[in-house]
Amino acid sequence: MDSSETRRIFQALETFRIEVPSWGFANTGTRFGKFLQLAAASTTEEKFSDAAEVHRATGICPTIALHVLWDFPKGLASAKEITALTTRYGIQAGSINPNVFQDQIYKFGSFGNPDASVRSHALQHTKDSIEIARHLHSRDISMWFADGSSYPGTANIRQRKAWFEDGLKEVHSHLSAEQRLLVEYKPFEPAFYHTDIADWGMALHLARSAGPQGKVLVDTGHHYHSQNIEQIVAWLLSQEMLGGFHFNDRMGNKA
Amino acid sequence: MDSSETRRIFQALETFRIEVPSWGFANTGTRFGKFLQLAAASTTEEKFSDAAEVHRATGICPTIALHVLWDFPKGLASAKEITALTTRYGIQAGSINPNVFQDQIYKFGSFGNPDASVRSHALQHTKDSIEIARHLHSRDISMWFADGSSYPGTANIRQRKAWFEDGLKEVHSHLSAEQRLLVEYKPFEPAFYHTDIADWGMALHLARSAGPQGKVLVDTGHHYHSQNIEQIVAWLLSQEMLGGFHFNDRMGNKA
Amino acid sequence: MDSSETRRIFQALETFRIEVPSWGFANTGTRFGKFLQLAAASTTEEKFSDAAEVHRATGICPTIALHVLWDFPKGLASAKEITALTTRYGIQAGSINPNVFQDQIYKFGSFGNPDASVRSHALQHTKDSIEIARHLHSRDISMWFADGSSYPGTANIRQRKAWFEDGLKEVHSHLSAEQRLLVEYKPFEPAFYHTDIADWGMALHLARSAGPQGKVLVDTGHHYHSQNIEQIVAWLLSQEMLGGFHFNDRMGNKA
Amino acid sequence: MDSSETRRIFQALETFRIEVPSWGFANTGTRFGKFLQLAAASTTEEKFSDAAEVHRATGICPTIALHVLWDFPKGLASAKEITALTTRYGIQAGSINPNVFQDQIYKFGSFGNPDASVRSHALQHTKDSIEIARHLHSRDISMWFADGSSYPGTANIRQRKAWFEDGLKEVHSHLSAEQRLLVEYKPFEPAFYHTDIADWGMALHLARSAGPQGKVLVDTGHHYHSQNIEQIVAWLLSQEMLGGFHFNDRMGNKA
Repeated sequence: MDSSETRRIFQALETFRIEVPSWGFANTGTRFGKFLQLAAASTTEEKFSDAAEVHRATGICPTIALHVLWDFPKGLASAKEITALTTRYGIQAGSINPNVFQDQIYKFGSFGNPDASVRSHALQHTKDSIEIARHLHSRDISMWFADGSSYPGTANIRQRKAWFEDGLKEVHSHLSAEQRLLVEYKPFEPAFYHTDIADWGMALHLARSAGPQGKVLVDTGHHYHSQNIEQIVAWLLSQEMLGGFHFNDRMGNKA
Repeated sequence: MDSSETRRIFQALETFRIEVPSWGFANTGTRFGKFLQLAAASTTEEKFSDAAEVHRATGICPTIALHVLWDFPKGLASAKEITALTTRYGIQAGSINPNVFQDQIYKFGSFGNPDASVRSHALQHTKDSIEIARHLHSRDISMWFADGSSYPGTANIRQRKAWFEDGLKEVHSHLSAEQRLLVEYKPFEPAFYHTDIADWGMALHLARSAGPQGKVLVDTGHHYHSQNIEQIVAWLLSQEMLGGFHFNDRMGNKA
Repeated sequence: MDSSETRRIFQALETFRIEVPSWGFANTGTRFGKFLQLAAASTTEEKFSDAAEVHRATGICPTIALHVLWDFPKGLASAKEITALTTRYGIQAGSINPNVFQDQIYKFGSFGNPDASVRSHALQHTKDSIEIARHLHSRDISMWFADGSSYPGTANIRQRKAWFEDGLKEVHSHLSAEQRLLVEYKPFEPAFYHTDIADWGMALHLARSAGPQGKVLVDTGHHYHSQNIEQIVAWLLSQEMLGGFHFNDRMGNKA
Repeated sequence: MDSSETRRIFQALETFRIEVPSWGFANTGTRFGKFLQLAAASTTEEKFSDAAEVHRATGICPTIALHVLWDFPKGLASAKEITALTTRYGIQAGSINPNVFQDQIYKFGSFGNPDASVRSHALQHTKDSIEIARHLHSRDISMWFADGSSYPGTANIRQRKAWFEDGLKEVHSHLSAEQRLLVEYKPFEPAFYHTDIADWGMALHLARSAGPQGKVLVDTGHHYHSQNIEQIVAWLLSQEMLGGFHFNDRMGNKA
């Protein structure tokens, strides 16, 4: 590389920022159990405190991704407390992550659930999350869906796709001009047979059909064995549809 | 299922046809060698003869896919002989398969080759193939590309994507109204690092950007481990972009 | 097949029995959560009742695999209650499954834990389980280990192998003559980098070095993509080291 | 690491040698074809010349692996010419590789072929290769087998295992005291359904049952997706059964 290319890379690195996820500071585990760590964060304030420590050490982690169910137990009413934490710890709210997978009603899906009232519930939670994001001046609403089915023939894949198109269009219409709707893909887990948004091609279609502020979120750990992630990123860049990354490896799903 | 659904399935099966590929009757092998079979077809006529035998036994295989380089050694000038074979054996010409991977000039690709003269050569061969198909009243031009790269950083993936978009648009413009351009995807082989059309999402984009007669060809053997092929088919159907199938298993690439 | 072969297969099927696992009747889930089912068993008695129902319907499921921690909360003292259940429901106790993965002390392993006191605890639990099995006239002690490490370089793989050899030898010495020690393998989950007993070759070595009553347990869901399970079974048969099966598919770990 | 560990690593690196394979200097390709390179070696002498060049540049590649069919077209009678080449180029003969896969007679296998006369032919070729190795003072006879089957139910896996045990025992008996018999494993290619020596566990069994000079050869490219190669190496070391490496990546079989 000549020196101008080197300079360009170094300049890019100067402005490179990594957002830390609040849930990454908490205890976590596998389906076999959780090994508890004394130092794990157990409150949202402790997560902000930990994030501030990371930023102190690195200088490139000024924001924290927040999880609506876990960090905003009172919904929008919790936003004031979060704002106080951002001030106290010097860490800004990053992407806002709705949760449409944890409640028992989501057993057969959220945006793709055959039950209209469940889809409606998931849409409302997402709209509420957009409102929270607006309040905190967060640009990105980041959607990961656990939707899928565990046995062949139990789900109408094309119908669910249509429901996803409709739902994402609807929540997109609630975005402010500066907000973005990120659609993540994942080929496996927790569903065993099919996952509604399994790969970059599906996420691309849904992000694009949602509207101009829809983009694709690439989790580097969410790919098939031997899939070329760099190529997917290159394609999304060339389509101007790359929304961001989750930098997981695949060790946790190495099989 | 009630009886009307059963009836619908049986009716669909009544009209279901499978096309046999001419090259499937010849000797083939692996990179380690070829084990020769006395009964293997060695001429195009023998391939037609074998296909006719299959059709006699099954009643649902009335057409044969043809490979331009191998079955039309003189190009369009060979079409008359093929027409004679269709008459003699009662087997019609099916999809026409250009070959843009066998010649030494394709070492670094065909439609995605950095050398404009090689791209031009590949485009010309494809246009010639369209002409052959027109002559034989074949509906489908079926494109499989071996394009890719074998080491990280050696190919400009986004530039190659643009060349593919341009090339496919250009050949699409030579189609007659009743013809279709099928774009196949394959995640591996023969390239070792990246394959330009690696998955259904890439094939979908390129088929669609080529023009309204571009469709995706799904080879059931061209997927990653654990990928849900049914779902891909369902998505392509819902986009009206499913062009056809190659019914391979993955035993030949089982690793 | 001639009729004598057919007869042999039918005769084999006549005596084929499938054991149901008690934990299969309970609610279960993924790391993302559990969807609760009203009809799920919540006590060991309910599990026996469910198993009896399965046996009534099939006639080939007369035994139930039991899990020491979950079905024997008071250890050997619970055995009397289990015996009562076997009488009440007409279902016999099948394989006995020690649990050396659930407690917090097992964070860095059980038989392979660098801490001698943890290894000792795991060995004692296994010996207790053998005692329980003896009391219930159960032939098989079935060992699955979650032991492994989640980052390269954090575990001494050869040392852990030696600890496993020692531990399995020790527990084998507590078996009665009619008992067997089954060693299961699994290439992934819950550890992220290495699993101490990852494949059939490792299980074979450890089962054999334990002693003559050590055998390998093949879980059909515990293999790499594209691995030939039939071949592994054939090899274990030819070594007289096949101890039994767990009939899982790999949908739950399809990635 | 303290300085004594560092020193130990550097000392180990000082004596580390890599052997180059003669066939690596020739043109090679995939089942789709070969792209020819002008500079590729086309004679054994050119391969020695290339190997000498590599050794001049690196200082750690003093030997060349030789392939009996390709480098010894006249069998033992070619050994004199090879000795002349070792003198001329200052490169010694390394491991000797029999070829029991290329001839048409090996369609259904070599050591595992159901036809006794084919097995006998393969054994004789291997004994001849041992003789060649002895003549060249090569320590290692390196065996890779393409044996396998392409459809379920076509091969008797246990019988083939027995033939492999017998055959390897027999050729082992022809080794001189300082020679070793290396058994390589590979889970895929060229067979499509089963490969007789598919993994390290199978190679370990066969190498050990052959005799005390049997060892396992680990090709780093011959593993399933996500298999932990380091662990396999650690286990083989602990059993004193690690014979050597082939340093392939898995790009060529990345699917």
